[in-house]
Amino acid sequence: MSKYWSEITKSIEPYVCGEQPKDKKYIKLNTNESPYPPSPKVLEAIKNAANGDLRLYPDPDCDELRSTIAEYYNLNKDEIFIGNGSDEVLAFSFLTFFNTNETIVFPDISYSFYPVYAGLYNLKYRLAKLQEDFSIPISEFIGKNGGVVIPNPNAPTGRYLDVDSIKKILNCNSNKVVIIDEAYIDFGGDSVVELIKDYDNLLVIQTLSKSRSLAGIRVGFAMGNKELIQGLNRVKNSFNSYTIDRVAASAAMAAIKDEDYFKQCVEKIIKTRERIVKKLNSLGFNVIPSEANFIFITHKNYAANDLFIKLREKSVLVRYFNKEKINNYLRVSIGSDEEMDFFIEKFQEIIDEV
Amino acid sequence: MSKYWSEITKSIEPYVCGEQPKDKKYIKLNTNESPYPPSPKVLEAIKNAANGDLRLYPDPDCDELRSTIAEYYNLNKDEIFIGNGSDEVLAFSFLTFFNTNETIVFPDISYSFYPVYAGLYNLKYRLAKLQEDFSIPISEFIGKNGGVVIPNPNAPTGRYLDVDSIKKILNCNSNKVVIIDEAYIDFGGDSVVELIKDYDNLLVIQTLSKSRSLAGIRVGFAMGNKELIQGLNRVKNSFNSYTIDRVAASAAMAAIKDEDYFKQCVEKIIKTRERIVKKLNSLGFNVIPSEANFIFITHKNYAANDLFIKLREKSVLVRYFNKEKINNYLRVSIGSDEEMDFFIEKFQEIIDEV
Repeated sequence: MSKYWSEITKSIEPYVCGEQPKDKKYIKLNTNESPYPPSPKVLEAIKNAANGDLRLYPDPDCDELRSTIAEYYNLNKDEIFIGNGSDEVLAFSFLTFFNTNETIVFPDISYSFYPVYAGLYNLKYRLAKLQEDFSIPISEFIGKNGGVVIPNPNAPTGRYLDVDSIKKILNCNSNKVVIIDEAYIDFGGDSVVELIKDYDNLLVIQTLSKSRSLAGIRVGFAMGNKELIQGLNRVKNSFNSYTIDRVAASAAMAAIKDEDYFKQCVEKIIKTRERIVKKLNSLGFNVIPSEANFIFITHKNYAANDLFIKLREKSVLVRYFNKEKINNYLRVSIGSDEEMDFFIEKFQEIIDEV
Repeated sequence: MSKYWSEITKSIEPYVCGEQPKDKKYIKLNTNESPYPPSPKVLEAIKNAANGDLRLYPDPDCDELRSTIAEYYNLNKDEIFIGNGSDEVLAFSFLTFFNTNETIVFPDISYSFYPVYAGLYNLKYRLAKLQEDFSIPISEFIGKNGGVVIPNPNAPTGRYLDVDSIKKILNCNSNKVVIIDEAYIDFGGDSVVELIKDYDNLLVIQTLSKSRSLAGIRVGFAMGNKELIQGLNRVKNSFNSYTIDRVAASAAMAAIKDEDYFKQCVEKIIKTRERIVKKLNSLGFNVIPSEANFIFITHKNYAANDLFIKLREKSVLVRYFNKEKINNYLRVSIGSDEEMDFFIEKFQEIIDEV
């Protein structure tokens, strides 16, 4: 604590992201990155953007990139907002749409950044109780809310909520914004982007960090009715005019345009996931059904925290959350086939050592 | 106004940045960009960063870049904070150090983003009255303040405040954070970075956008006592873990390391400024003494707004602020010698047409 910190700075509990260790080489299955590099066209676009124009500010409105995404999703440019990663888009969204005197709702097991945003902006929240199997009960989102946030598929569980269920939640919260955080939607779920034309309270957030292999470049975006997007722009332009640099904008455009490469990567990851789920089941794991690029697993005979520590010793990083309800689970990102085989091999070594 | 906007979203007045027009080619002297491209070593670094590692998140703490800046300024790594442009660093700083129940102070003529941040975070502020010649009176910053923010050199005036004056302001506000926004310090002023070891209430903010020709890449940084930096990290980690992408971090490191190129560019800009100031004086302009990469000018015979409009018609963009006290001034960025000669030529055409 420092006497120079504001009351807010003293009170917040910052988010802690997955380890990015530097002590040795790990098989990194802890932060849901893609095992595949970005499209060669993205790397080419970055090289082309390395020119004298970098002396100039970027376009503060990201016009070209918004047009590219709008075309991809059959929306208008003014229905798109770009941010410095989907975390920034979420941070702006909490401030743009939620009020301190109302209570927002999100699942009790979900992206652990949500309560952090709430703390930063002094927002009240209620935690919607998930079912035993981690499925999301619609009933928890009905009633008087200050807004709703749902990751779909949910993290860290991987559980997917179908479009009809989200429609029901949108209908029950027509005066408040419902944020569907689709960071992982490309790995098997159906996006609710098409509902934007019918629901002016729907904000869909996506990212290029996962399915488009660009965690290192920081681009996320929101899609919604143009009034919602105008609100986001008001807040963003009261915080930082130029959030997306010239190189990132070029990389993002190239990534969205290379549909073939995107599909190939996603298909490979899904195929690996299905194979590994079967394998883990045969080894006695319970695997929560996942439509994401990670799986949430627990084993009746081995404590998750022990496995986490032993895997780490064997150079495999997975994510463990020391939190009620999920403290006997591990979240494992889907890596390449080789990485996943290495993970299984190390798990079997651990069993043999017991 | 939308019913979905929060009270804050409704109340804020967003910042409006200098035009980035797309209708035709302009001589751009309106946003204080460098007329010179980034160092060739920066462009090389960007090309090298265009590789498969972009699938991975960047280092959330920007360790290597902080070390590079720390070494450059003879500070410790934990005395450096990196942000997505100095605007983001300022946005975090207002939230980290200032409280809603206290009154912060900044000059009545200064960077017009400061009152916007105050609006975003619901902070009270008092405007310190500048002298007639736009110099900053120390007396205005003495007394009970919730914090102090001063751009040095000031924008849009270009006026520089010497180190001793800033020492006095630091001494008079020892319980509150004093932010010295040194976006333009490299063009003739002395940085107060060396005072950090003596003043734990001093936060110095700089950017790579101006003197290092990297407006297009978005990297700014704060330097101060490690407790201040810890506070900034708490807020940043409650907003967005990964604010600096892999490519931007590489570019920034290369820029800081290429001291020769940096010095050459800054010297050329200063030389052009001195030459143009003389020329403008001879044409009847009053030029406020500037230690920045822009000048603030007024002419007794020609209204600034008229000149602004006519220059724009002749493809020269400068900045005009329709604001009390300065509504007969133009802020003109220092371009290349050719650009500045074009500007003078167009001004003379305008005179001849009257």
